[in-house]
Amino acid sequence: MANNADVYDAARVIVKVKEPTNQEVAWLKSDHLLFCYLHLAANTALMEKLLAIGLTAIAFETVPDSQGGLPLLAPMSDIAGRLAVQIGTTLLHQPQGGKGVLLGGLPGASRGSVVVVGGGVVGSAAVEVAAALGAQVTVFDRNHEKLVQLRSLGHNVTALYPYRQALSTAVSQADLLVGAVLITGAKAPHVVSAHDVQSMDPGSIVVDVAVDQGGCIETTRPTNYAEPTYMWEGIVHFAVTNMPGAVPRSASQALSAVLLPYVLALSEDTWDKHAGLRTGVNVSAGKVVYPSLVDNQ
Amino acid sequence: MANNADVYDAARVIVKVKEPTNQEVAWLKSDHLLFCYLHLAANTALMEKLLAIGLTAIAFETVPDSQGGLPLLAPMSDIAGRLAVQIGTTLLHQPQGGKGVLLGGLPGASRGSVVVVGGGVVGSAAVEVAAALGAQVTVFDRNHEKLVQLRSLGHNVTALYPYRQALSTAVSQADLLVGAVLITGAKAPHVVSAHDVQSMDPGSIVVDVAVDQGGCIETTRPTNYAEPTYMWEGIVHFAVTNMPGAVPRSASQALSAVLLPYVLALSEDTWDKHAGLRTGVNVSAGKVVYPSLVDNQ
Amino acid sequence: MANNADVYDAARVIVKVKEPTNQEVAWLKSDHLLFCYLHLAANTALMEKLLAIGLTAIAFETVPDSQGGLPLLAPMSDIAGRLAVQIGTTLLHQPQGGKGVLLGGLPGASRGSVVVVGGGVVGSAAVEVAAALGAQVTVFDRNHEKLVQLRSLGHNVTALYPYRQALSTAVSQADLLVGAVLITGAKAPHVVSAHDVQSMDPGSIVVDVAVDQGGCIETTRPTNYAEPTYMWEGIVHFAVTNMPGAVPRSASQALSAVLLPYVLALSEDTWDKHAGLRTGVNVSAGKVVYPSLVDNQ
Amino acid sequence: MANNADVYDAARVIVKVKEPTNQEVAWLKSDHLLFCYLHLAANTALMEKLLAIGLTAIAFETVPDSQGGLPLLAPMSDIAGRLAVQIGTTLLHQPQGGKGVLLGGLPGASRGSVVVVGGGVVGSAAVEVAAALGAQVTVFDRNHEKLVQLRSLGHNVTALYPYRQALSTAVSQADLLVGAVLITGAKAPHVVSAHDVQSMDPGSIVVDVAVDQGGCIETTRPTNYAEPTYMWEGIVHFAVTNMPGAVPRSASQALSAVLLPYVLALSEDTWDKHAGLRTGVNVSAGKVVYPSLVDNQ
Amino acid sequence: MANNADVYDAARVIVKVKEPTNQEVAWLKSDHLLFCYLHLAANTALMEKLLAIGLTAIAFETVPDSQGGLPLLAPMSDIAGRLAVQIGTTLLHQPQGGKGVLLGGLPGASRGSVVVVGGGVVGSAAVEVAAALGAQVTVFDRNHEKLVQLRSLGHNVTALYPYRQALSTAVSQADLLVGAVLITGAKAPHVVSAHDVQSMDPGSIVVDVAVDQGGCIETTRPTNYAEPTYMWEGIVHFAVTNMPGAVPRSASQALSAVLLPYVLALSEDTWDKHAGLRTGVNVSAGKVVYPSLVDNQ
Amino acid sequence: MANNADVYDAARVIVKVKEPTNQEVAWLKSDHLLFCYLHLAANTALMEKLLAIGLTAIAFETVPDSQGGLPLLAPMSDIAGRLAVQIGTTLLHQPQGGKGVLLGGLPGASRGSVVVVGGGVVGSAAVEVAAALGAQVTVFDRNHEKLVQLRSLGHNVTALYPYRQALSTAVSQADLLVGAVLITGAKAPHVVSAHDVQSMDPGSIVVDVAVDQGGCIETTRPTNYAEPTYMWEGIVHFAVTNMPGAVPRSASQALSAVLLPYVLALSEDTWDKHAGLRTGVNVSAGKVVYPSLVDNQ
Repeated sequence: MANNADVYDAARVIVKVKEPTNQEVAWLKSDHLLFCYLHLAANTALMEKLLAIGLTAIAFETVPDSQGGLPLLAPMSDIAGRLAVQIGTTLLHQPQGGKGVLLGGLPGASRGSVVVVGGGVVGSAAVEVAAALGAQVTVFDRNHEKLVQLRSLGHNVTALYPYRQALSTAVSQADLLVGAVLITGAKAPHVVSAHDVQSMDPGSIVVDVAVDQGGCIETTRPTNYAEPTYMWEGIVHFAVTNMPGAVPRSASQALSAVLLPYVLALSEDTWDKHAGLRTGVNVSAGKVVYPSLVDNQ
Repeated sequence: MANNADVYDAARVIVKVKEPTNQEVAWLKSDHLLFCYLHLAANTALMEKLLAIGLTAIAFETVPDSQGGLPLLAPMSDIAGRLAVQIGTTLLHQPQGGKGVLLGGLPGASRGSVVVVGGGVVGSAAVEVAAALGAQVTVFDRNHEKLVQLRSLGHNVTALYPYRQALSTAVSQADLLVGAVLITGAKAPHVVSAHDVQSMDPGSIVVDVAVDQGGCIETTRPTNYAEPTYMWEGIVHFAVTNMPGAVPRSASQALSAVLLPYVLALSEDTWDKHAGLRTGVNVSAGKVVYPSLVDNQ
Repeated sequence: MANNADVYDAARVIVKVKEPTNQEVAWLKSDHLLFCYLHLAANTALMEKLLAIGLTAIAFETVPDSQGGLPLLAPMSDIAGRLAVQIGTTLLHQPQGGKGVLLGGLPGASRGSVVVVGGGVVGSAAVEVAAALGAQVTVFDRNHEKLVQLRSLGHNVTALYPYRQALSTAVSQADLLVGAVLITGAKAPHVVSAHDVQSMDPGSIVVDVAVDQGGCIETTRPTNYAEPTYMWEGIVHFAVTNMPGAVPRSASQALSAVLLPYVLALSEDTWDKHAGLRTGVNVSAGKVVYPSLVDNQ
Repeated sequence: MANNADVYDAARVIVKVKEPTNQEVAWLKSDHLLFCYLHLAANTALMEKLLAIGLTAIAFETVPDSQGGLPLLAPMSDIAGRLAVQIGTTLLHQPQGGKGVLLGGLPGASRGSVVVVGGGVVGSAAVEVAAALGAQVTVFDRNHEKLVQLRSLGHNVTALYPYRQALSTAVSQADLLVGAVLITGAKAPHVVSAHDVQSMDPGSIVVDVAVDQGGCIETTRPTNYAEPTYMWEGIVHFAVTNMPGAVPRSASQALSAVLLPYVLALSEDTWDKHAGLRTGVNVSAGKVVYPSLVDNQ
Repeated sequence: MANNADVYDAARVIVKVKEPTNQEVAWLKSDHLLFCYLHLAANTALMEKLLAIGLTAIAFETVPDSQGGLPLLAPMSDIAGRLAVQIGTTLLHQPQGGKGVLLGGLPGASRGSVVVVGGGVVGSAAVEVAAALGAQVTVFDRNHEKLVQLRSLGHNVTALYPYRQALSTAVSQADLLVGAVLITGAKAPHVVSAHDVQSMDPGSIVVDVAVDQGGCIETTRPTNYAEPTYMWEGIVHFAVTNMPGAVPRSASQALSAVLLPYVLALSEDTWDKHAGLRTGVNVSAGKVVYPSLVDNQ
Repeated sequence: MANNADVYDAARVIVKVKEPTNQEVAWLKSDHLLFCYLHLAANTALMEKLLAIGLTAIAFETVPDSQGGLPLLAPMSDIAGRLAVQIGTTLLHQPQGGKGVLLGGLPGASRGSVVVVGGGVVGSAAVEVAAALGAQVTVFDRNHEKLVQLRSLGHNVTALYPYRQALSTAVSQADLLVGAVLITGAKAPHVVSAHDVQSMDPGSIVVDVAVDQGGCIETTRPTNYAEPTYMWEGIVHFAVTNMPGAVPRSASQALSAVLLPYVLALSEDTWDKHAGLRTGVNVSAGKVVYPSLVDNQ
């Protein structure tokens, strides 16, 4: 096989999963069409480089479908939400630093309490797994239709509007808190404060799935799978960026199922007639194009 | 039809549903075999009368099957447990004196909390209905196998051992408290104290299904369907004796399905070879025969 | 606190839950923006007064979302549908005048039969609760997609098109009939005739949730929680206007979760650019604006 | 391989699935121990032959476990009950002679009605499949505990005591009637009369699983898979003996899983100390040993 | 009643279920408006005749709703999908030529394997029934949202993208293969090859619901209920055209529920303003109008 | 507080959770009654010490109830089974050494495969969690009634008899293998061979819950929570002794609920009349008393 630099040189369209490494950035040229997860809102260094190169970069996470969903983000969000609860369940084990609670409870023992903030794809997936395991779940979302759907995931799911007080009370009683508030292509807001986290019992667990976009919990700072957790005021925090990297087989199977039609479209000269792809362009010819990135500048 | 006195006079076996009225007591004779619900532990006046007559009285509620269950009590207990939650659900409506809460909750609103004390037939039925309605249910029982079964009724059911503190905490947070502790043929113990009830929010509901045997909640006093509830310290109490009387059609259909083989057995001279019937004799020839009634004397 | 007249005088936007009382009407002025449940189709007296005042009144129940749903009516409809079955279940008890049937049935006893006419938010909620309780449910709706969704609520739910004969047969066999046909901002049609109701067994129950808009069952006349039921030809009728008033805590929690964004929009001068609010204006400057009210005039 | 006659000659224990054919009977000797399904109550010809030979024959269907169950009949009964509904579902198709009804119903169409008479292993399996398919199921059994279990198979299952009138009414409205009353080692009683069957709609289906023991429906006569059905008064009857023969792969997998320990026990000289095997001896040394066969003689 | 020729002569609108027979074609005139299932893509002979007559023919199966669904095809597709599994289940019985497997499995025996190709209305219905029966189901569809919905039909359902290799592997292990790929008004593509079918075990079953449009499985050729199956390389094939004809009662009840509003619209002179009806015109005044039929010519 | 040595000296009954440490052994005397988990079959060193001291030791894990269950082992077994799947789910993540598979699958991706060997309390709990997470589960047990119960845990559960070939095939395809074969008070047999484990894909997971009794998988060797896993031929093994130690809060809540009546009984002089306690004596007065320990000597 030719070396990678040559491969890049010969290509018109570069399709990757994750953002380019520094080495790969060196191989990019202005006539390249880059198509991958980018998360530029949280990575201005990379944005500057791409602008300097002058290429066109389309971020998976900003390509919409006709209903306003994000079809290329959805499978990864689905995975991340499920992983958040699977991992949180295990972190609650005492040898992992947790309070030693079985999340689903037992005959003669209480059920654990899970709070999920945000009821989109990530949050729904987290609620689904936590409910299936038998935990008591409280999920917060502003959208009433989502509350209806989330509540239907189980009689052990309570779906509420995120009034500040209701949210703080729920967080203070949670064994596991999952942060799942993401806003397309923008930094996540801090919907759970450090003060809220401090009110949790020692040995409780925080998993912030929004960490790729800066985190939606104030005490979150990015980690990786080499050292996935850190302790803050006795609370175990897990905030690995690119969470789906833990299950690459399942992730690639699910992602390729949704990716194929887009790659085929990009291979045509008329790709910019494709509404989703055109909308998903983040930078092009040295300019920031994607609206929320423009606002963030 | 002959009048009732004549009917009694001609009969050898008297099968009724409820205990005899004063008028009926006047028709009873020493060679009668009386077979009905009696609940003598809570009705010493009737016991004295039956002893004076000298007849043999078998109480439905004390006839065991070979596994130690109470087959003639079970259908009524099942009904009473279901009614307890159906009625409690409606009493929570504000026009009935309740706190104005929808027991099963709503998208955007909390689920109500139900505490059931006792996990036998009554308690299981109450838990089943409350769980189906979507409430958060906590049920207490001493028997671990029952805890296993009760917990399997739904992910919104927590089944616990009745440690005093766990029970008090749960009661204090309940919207609806169902008392379901019954001991075969004996007075029910007071497993929930007046102090526990006092800790509940105003407008909460207490339904004590054990009222026929004296009640298992300290603040219970018997009522009837003419005036079914009373208020105690702001808590609505429902403690109608003979609760299944509210649904006579369903009750008689279910009861007759289990009663038939026993009535056939009683019509034979050899009925006292039938283990269940023999065990269920409460009084005979002027003597108290049923062990726990003897102890209670 | 200032007295209420002063509060009204100082306000530009008046947000209430129910329609204004006579006293409140006296405080209203032509430059007020009134935002509450109004149900003017069934209350021409109030409509006349509001026209005379000349203010702008937006009815919660006529504000649409972008899919044609009614987001501010939905939570109340959801509650009313659930209450209809909870209350109907208890009215079937003999001391309440009912036929003495346990709606969900028992081992050895039949399941009760529930007929729901109309499969919108009210009807779906009623079907969901009746199905969860274990009744045999038949629901009628003209829309095939709704039939698909309703049928999926349980194997004990049959969803049918409201052919006259099918509807009459079902009603004649029902223990509990729930009227749930509502048409946005207009009088409900009589889809169940007096003759249909007459064919029901004595002690059966009718709950007409459409009573706020005139009722969809011919024998319905409005009642209130002080005297909630009346008997017509041996059939118990419950037709309380403002049914959700029974559970004010749950109702206000659910309603406020959907109301907040609209109130924020109304506080802006540009509120009439908001598609939902603009469509929901019923009267303004002395004119009836809402189309179906115009037709009704 | 030696021919079969030689194999029989050399063997002490003969384990088969079905009763011996005429040819095999010729090979049997008085010192053989025969272990297979026998159903002698409905096959006196075979019983006479076995008595004449003088061997010991243990029938799978009469070997009890310690709880009074029939472990070697149970898997076949389970299969037969499931097949009864699968086959009945297809017979309801018009090209098969049925009334052209989809058993589970549809959005906009009624659900079919299934009546199962008998709630043992056969009946439970039939109810389970019919309930899963979405039919309205009514099942009859005398035992209250079974009614409790059967009812828990779905909210579309009603479990009743077999009062004559209740049974007749249910049968007259059934699309599919499954006969599932079997009494260990004895002829099945006729619990559904010809008159009951006559009251069914033309094109309705009768499947009598008890046909191996004579049938529990009066209009049943044995058929085989070559010509499995016959019409009686417009009602399609299916009464194939040895129903599980339709799914030999699944049947042999399930049967061998329960059979192995018994075969191991039989290979020991002390097999007659094994309570189940000893009880299951039907004939031995020219005498009928199994009690209900003795009574039937 | 007048004879049919006269009835046709007097009519302006002809509403039928199936396409006209040769005799009926003789009665059709150029000013007739024909409204029925037509499936002209697979029946060019009929198309030629209708063009020659010059009438306007609207095919049920090509009338869209506003979301792009096919409301008049949907109920029949729903039925066909359910029948496919019901019939396939029975064909697996050995006397029908099948491999003798119980599709839902048993305690101690494996669960059967069902592969459904295509996840639209037909495929969803097939998956729903197969999942309810307890089989292991794999369903293939290109649309990610459908994969989400299909997977939610049960934990025994796996929903995959139809990569060639994944599809071939799944087919080779299937006990029952259901072909359910239909494209509106066009010939179905062959998504399963003869080679794929050949890889299945002898006694496995193929049911191709797309047969009305030519079949989506290469080895499919149309059959009818008189002789519904044929054997190809040891695999039982069922490919009856007009499958719903097996359950005419349920089908007509479901169809008429969706048909009524369209018939009312057709009876108006302005029917061609109705978007769905106008789109559904296949031929008119001697011209092929429906786009995919034009392409197919 | 007195120091522990004094506490031991003053006590007659010593109740602990785990077996005594070396230090505690030094405090034990011949007139002590020791009551805790002992697992002497796998710890002959401790057995020798207890024999030398001459005390009476009752092991929690060998106290039977009247049905032959092990009430004091059951809650821990329940926990261990649940933990096995929770931990196995996380070990499948690539950063933990696993193959990078999401156990419950995804829309567009396969479901993971779990094999559980043994269907007692441990195995049932493992199956329940794996089924709830959406994996494809195969469980093996010799007892047919258990197969019936296990299969009812979900349509994604297949329950089979442990024929050697069926077991080996299933293991070779498993993502997660849970060993759950325990025999009361005896060493676990090796039901899965090293050869079987070797046939699994690299990155698959083995969790052997029977490790406290020597392990039921040949490649198991005990680990602890400090270093819980080891790699053998590319397969991740988890075999922590005392698994429930990970969730001490839940474990102690569940254990104390079953322990209390036994401790009360032990405090009486007549404790040796208690059938369960008497049976559970492992060593007494220098003699091995418990039968299977005697055999093992």
